[in-house]
Amino acid sequence: MATLIDIARSNEANQNEIIEKVSSFEEIDKNIFIEKIKKGEYVVPLNIKNKNKRKIIGIGDGLTTKVNVNIGASPKLSGLELERKKLHSAIKYGADAVMDLSIGNKASEVRKMVIEESTVPVGTVPIYEALNNVKGKGVEYLTKENLFDTVEKQGEEGVDFVTIHAGVLFEDVYKMKSNPRLAGIVSRGGAITAEWMLKNKKENPFFEYFDDLLKILKKYDMALSLGDGMRPGAIKDATDYYQIEELKILGKLFKKANEFGVQTMIEGPGHIPLNQIEKNIKLEKEYCYNAPFYVLGPLVTDIAPGYDHITAAIGGALAGYYGANFLCFVTPAEHLHLPDEKDTIDGLIATKIAANASDIAKGNKKAIKRAEEISLARKNFDWEKQKALSINPDEVERRLKLKGVAEDGVCTMCGEFCSMKRMNSLN
Amino acid sequence: MATLIDIARSNEANQNEIIEKVSSFEEIDKNIFIEKIKKGEYVVPLNIKNKNKRKIIGIGDGLTTKVNVNIGASPKLSGLELERKKLHSAIKYGADAVMDLSIGNKASEVRKMVIEESTVPVGTVPIYEALNNVKGKGVEYLTKENLFDTVEKQGEEGVDFVTIHAGVLFEDVYKMKSNPRLAGIVSRGGAITAEWMLKNKKENPFFEYFDDLLKILKKYDMALSLGDGMRPGAIKDATDYYQIEELKILGKLFKKANEFGVQTMIEGPGHIPLNQIEKNIKLEKEYCYNAPFYVLGPLVTDIAPGYDHITAAIGGALAGYYGANFLCFVTPAEHLHLPDEKDTIDGLIATKIAANASDIAKGNKKAIKRAEEISLARKNFDWEKQKALSINPDEVERRLKLKGVAEDGVCTMCGEFCSMKRMNSLN
Repeated sequence: MATLIDIARSNEANQNEIIEKVSSFEEIDKNIFIEKIKKGEYVVPLNIKNKNKRKIIGIGDGLTTKVNVNIGASPKLSGLELERKKLHSAIKYGADAVMDLSIGNKASEVRKMVIEESTVPVGTVPIYEALNNVKGKGVEYLTKENLFDTVEKQGEEGVDFVTIHAGVLFEDVYKMKSNPRLAGIVSRGGAITAEWMLKNKKENPFFEYFDDLLKILKKYDMALSLGDGMRPGAIKDATDYYQIEELKILGKLFKKANEFGVQTMIEGPGHIPLNQIEKNIKLEKEYCYNAPFYVLGPLVTDIAPGYDHITAAIGGALAGYYGANFLCFVTPAEHLHLPDEKDTIDGLIATKIAANASDIAKGNKKAIKRAEEISLARKNFDWEKQKALSINPDEVERRLKLKGVAEDGVCTMCGEFCSMKRMNSLN
Repeated sequence: MATLIDIARSNEANQNEIIEKVSSFEEIDKNIFIEKIKKGEYVVPLNIKNKNKRKIIGIGDGLTTKVNVNIGASPKLSGLELERKKLHSAIKYGADAVMDLSIGNKASEVRKMVIEESTVPVGTVPIYEALNNVKGKGVEYLTKENLFDTVEKQGEEGVDFVTIHAGVLFEDVYKMKSNPRLAGIVSRGGAITAEWMLKNKKENPFFEYFDDLLKILKKYDMALSLGDGMRPGAIKDATDYYQIEELKILGKLFKKANEFGVQTMIEGPGHIPLNQIEKNIKLEKEYCYNAPFYVLGPLVTDIAPGYDHITAAIGGALAGYYGANFLCFVTPAEHLHLPDEKDTIDGLIATKIAANASDIAKGNKKAIKRAEEISLARKNFDWEKQKALSINPDEVERRLKLKGVAEDGVCTMCGEFCSMKRMNSLN
């Protein structure tokens, strides 16, 4: 079967359903969409096996900002049932994609459920499952075969995009031992890769055998998400040598992948102060040929455990405005514990707010129209319409019921002193 | 008694305790502080009657970003006991100031409690209490005497700063009838003033008799917060004619007040998209002689009722970075109902995150040091220290207990696959 890049590069372009769907939803010219797919500036994560099984989403500059939800069991907590609930809540509340980051002995079971039940694209980090092959022994016993076979297996199962930490190189990890940064490596996949390299004194197999990886990905048209193993885990480490060196490597890998016909995104930070966000986005676009940028946060302060969905929404909104294309959600549980279902919903809504705020700021017509419509409903005291247009109607419903609002049309904030009521009565 | 501006303008400057305290806390040169007080670029809200009764806070460019919490009963909901709880939670969780916005028959009682019990500066909107003088009759029966007597009475009681909507002018309100904006006037005080003017066909008394107002304020060294009655209540209305015309008027009033020796801040929006925030801050600084800018939000989207503490944290962080000095909190109840105690705490923490993120971005040394310290505690698995340095230790404690985290040192997110644990073990 032809991959999306192949289709875009061939004469079949006009006939392809994916291209039609995305360009129509995003209200952009189909030919521009095709050009951008060719160049690798747009990614549509969808395993060849999943046609008609998943929502089709486009990721890239000029398209609406998309949101990913991470779910997955950890060795400490959770299992199939909780992760199923989290998956379906994520879909219900509007996630554009989910990543199953399960690790430990429940990983395969949870992933199969997610692939089976998800109606949005599914991403994974294959090295987590590969680790189960060396269970009981150290990370260093992982082989190249374990890693690549796992990617292939997950492609066969129907994973739509995979995070691969191919830019974490031996030289930089070794350098970090003598020139440490405050928080070191905080990416789970990055840390596993670093440990493997240091213990085996060998280069990262995903880097060394990158062409083999591309062959597997192309077979299933799985999108590649180049992980940022060196992302800063503290404001102090933001935009440092390790982060930027890795970004340059990711840019080179992007170019190879694009030439090979594999759709590719670049992952980004992390903990970044407000004043460095614009620079970070610009560097990614510059070093990585305008590849779609998939950011985690960024978190704009380190001091808010319990509220990192908010620190990430601040950074995400600004990143989206400057050109990040895909926001990975962060939950209030970040830095503390595995998120539960409520944390998952809270994290998703906060990230969707960030995405929406960035879309409005970028002039997206649909986002602006929706803001106008809800404001008009507010002025007209049309509570049902406000609820329907809101980012989470269930929460509006809950609050309206709880506080006895709107009994006589006005809310309990001001009662008869409602400014809108007063002004409406004067017209 | 001499007011703070008088002291700064006299030779007593070096002896004044307020000047010593603020410049030492903010780690700035005392002489710069004195210069800025003279120019009106810094405000320290503190009624002359309250020396030693309130926390002394400085507001202005180069000082840490401050956070205000609004409390107050409405005619629909709440009363003395709930507002007392909200007040003490606001102080406990780090509000720099509180405004009592009580309206209706409980207003006087609640305000007296707040003035008596608050350890942080207290602000009010005197027109709310003045309205009780015309109870049962329309807003139009308010007289100039009702308004000014109420300001004087509240000064005598010990209010530290007052919001006065002196920039809402007859001409613009009248113009709005034929040239409406989407959400009209959404400021409660602004709407009351507009209604009064339209029904009486007279100019705003606070504008017309501004000199009389200044005399009262000066007597108590009450700070003046020039309300933005024309603030946009929808993204569509952001930075429009009405908002900017009022801002220009506020700039002129600021100049008068400063010359008279009254400390003055400018209030700002409101609903503003991300991409217009920088411009809004620059316009305020330009039109208002670098007067401290006190913003409500800004909210960067209209579609998130139930989550407007987050939309406001996004806007507030960015506003603070570009030069807003004082952030008025917004709670998750905004647009829906009167906030309860939890909403108040959630709104405060979100706004404190915004203030902290902006301080880090502006290079504030204390904020940067605290971020480093908590990140180091995180790397060292020192959960007690992380808790102590966090923005809300109670929430960290609650989550750690709830999810059985840290039983063996690592959290339930990754368990033995914790990247920090792995990396620490390799060093």
